[in-house]
Amino acid sequence: MPDPSFAAWRLRIEAVLDRALPLATDPPQRLHAAMRHAALDGGKRMRPLLVYATGTAFGASETELDTAAAAVELIHAYSLVHDDLPAMDDDSLRRGKPTVHIAFDEATAILAGDALQSLAFELLADAPVAAAARVAMLRELAIASGPRGMCGGQALDIAATGNADAMRIEDLQRLHALKTGALLRASVRLGALAAAVDADTLQRLDRFGDALGLAFQIRDDLLDLEGDSATLGKTAGKDAAQAKATFPSLIGVEASRARLHELAQIMREALAPLAPRAGKLEALAHQVIQRDR
Amino acid sequence: MPDPSFAAWRLRIEAVLDRALPLATDPPQRLHAAMRHAALDGGKRMRPLLVYATGTAFGASETELDTAAAAVELIHAYSLVHDDLPAMDDDSLRRGKPTVHIAFDEATAILAGDALQSLAFELLADAPVAAAARVAMLRELAIASGPRGMCGGQALDIAATGNADAMRIEDLQRLHALKTGALLRASVRLGALAAAVDADTLQRLDRFGDALGLAFQIRDDLLDLEGDSATLGKTAGKDAAQAKATFPSLIGVEASRARLHELAQIMREALAPLAPRAGKLEALAHQVIQRDR
Repeated sequence: MPDPSFAAWRLRIEAVLDRALPLATDPPQRLHAAMRHAALDGGKRMRPLLVYATGTAFGASETELDTAAAAVELIHAYSLVHDDLPAMDDDSLRRGKPTVHIAFDEATAILAGDALQSLAFELLADAPVAAAARVAMLRELAIASGPRGMCGGQALDIAATGNADAMRIEDLQRLHALKTGALLRASVRLGALAAAVDADTLQRLDRFGDALGLAFQIRDDLLDLEGDSATLGKTAGKDAAQAKATFPSLIGVEASRARLHELAQIMREALAPLAPRAGKLEALAHQVIQRDR
Repeated sequence: MPDPSFAAWRLRIEAVLDRALPLATDPPQRLHAAMRHAALDGGKRMRPLLVYATGTAFGASETELDTAAAAVELIHAYSLVHDDLPAMDDDSLRRGKPTVHIAFDEATAILAGDALQSLAFELLADAPVAAAARVAMLRELAIASGPRGMCGGQALDIAATGNADAMRIEDLQRLHALKTGALLRASVRLGALAAAVDADTLQRLDRFGDALGLAFQIRDDLLDLEGDSATLGKTAGKDAAQAKATFPSLIGVEASRARLHELAQIMREALAPLAPRAGKLEALAHQVIQRDR
């Protein structure tokens, strides 16, 4: 049974995002409506949950964590809007809803993504923590989003698409460490920075965050292979259709499952000295490994 | 004759950007090359000049201003990359070079723009000024870039394209106050925040920055009407071809010129009590009014 905090945090982040996003009744309405379509009412909210779980474990209040949780989710939401564009993955279904360029139009989707990114940094600049911690959090989010993080990973992904045969497992790990790993790791670090944890704890949390990011992606690859679109809320079987290298395609389904279990072990070991405070992080790790969408 | 500082600052910002941008020889090379194509070797560098001119006038060193100058130029560069996309203005020429989606491809252009935005905030998070000033600068840049600034203005522009007849002069001013004005005003404010000016001075500088932004756009509209593509380094006559409302199309060429001269007067009055420190800002205002590209 999932931790009841998670459902409460999902409701909480929905309310925080709702307040932070511009009203769809204020001009320019179409831009605002597209931003809200992209960011509200959908997704597992894994990144906000990681911010709340890490931050509250080490003494930050939910109020101190709200803007960081919202900021990282806005970055994630913008990346999905742009990834779904015709020039990128050309996808029409996301979180069970039409993608932004389908529900609106392509120009609005490009712009809504851009504006969601700016808004993420605007929110974080007002996080109710000390200025030095805020600067560290802003730096963290910017690095995780940019060429050394998510955008860099997406570029590696584009370069690799159609070249699945040439890819080695190390290349794929590197790609995912940037494309999805950087932001998941940053979510953990944002919570830790807001709580001002010590260097040793931060190092353990980094190890946890890195393993979690990789586990998340391996599970994603397995789901794309085994899942159906209705449960996933997005198109299943896309990786094979696009000839993308995945963990199962490179090392097989059984080895991918074994790798997932190794990562679960790494996460447990990283968190062990932090027990019992890290209980919710352990529960999140368990969800990532077990999730069916 | 232009102030010799401007040429020196243009060289300086080129070097700062060159160091800040990821190397085109490091993977993902195509993304990095596209980012460099977008940001290096081009443009008037009006926004960095405003940062340097304002900041040095009130006691900040060039070193303290470098990252802010680079950050605002990266935001400007990313906005041009995305504005030029086929789904937006669909332009193939920019600063006398092929636009990023022409020189590379559309997916890379979307991604390079996204990464330039992240990099802007990353740089600014490391500005060598006190943490509280840095947070204020980060907030300033984020607001000027997002839905209440540049992205909002671009959305108004899209909504207005093809509807030139329905537009009133107040709507056009609002559009440009967001689309180009917000970032020009922010450039002045970033310099002022780095120099920690008092509230009265900041208010005067805001008045200057607002007038400058509007003057810049009216001059741009006149140039689009009167200029040729070779001098402009971008396609001339686009506004009429796209049926965009402009100051000349709404109030006529002569009234637009008269409005420019009024704005020059407003800028002089705003800066008058700040003389002789604000000499370089006056020189920049003069350039904006007189520029032929």
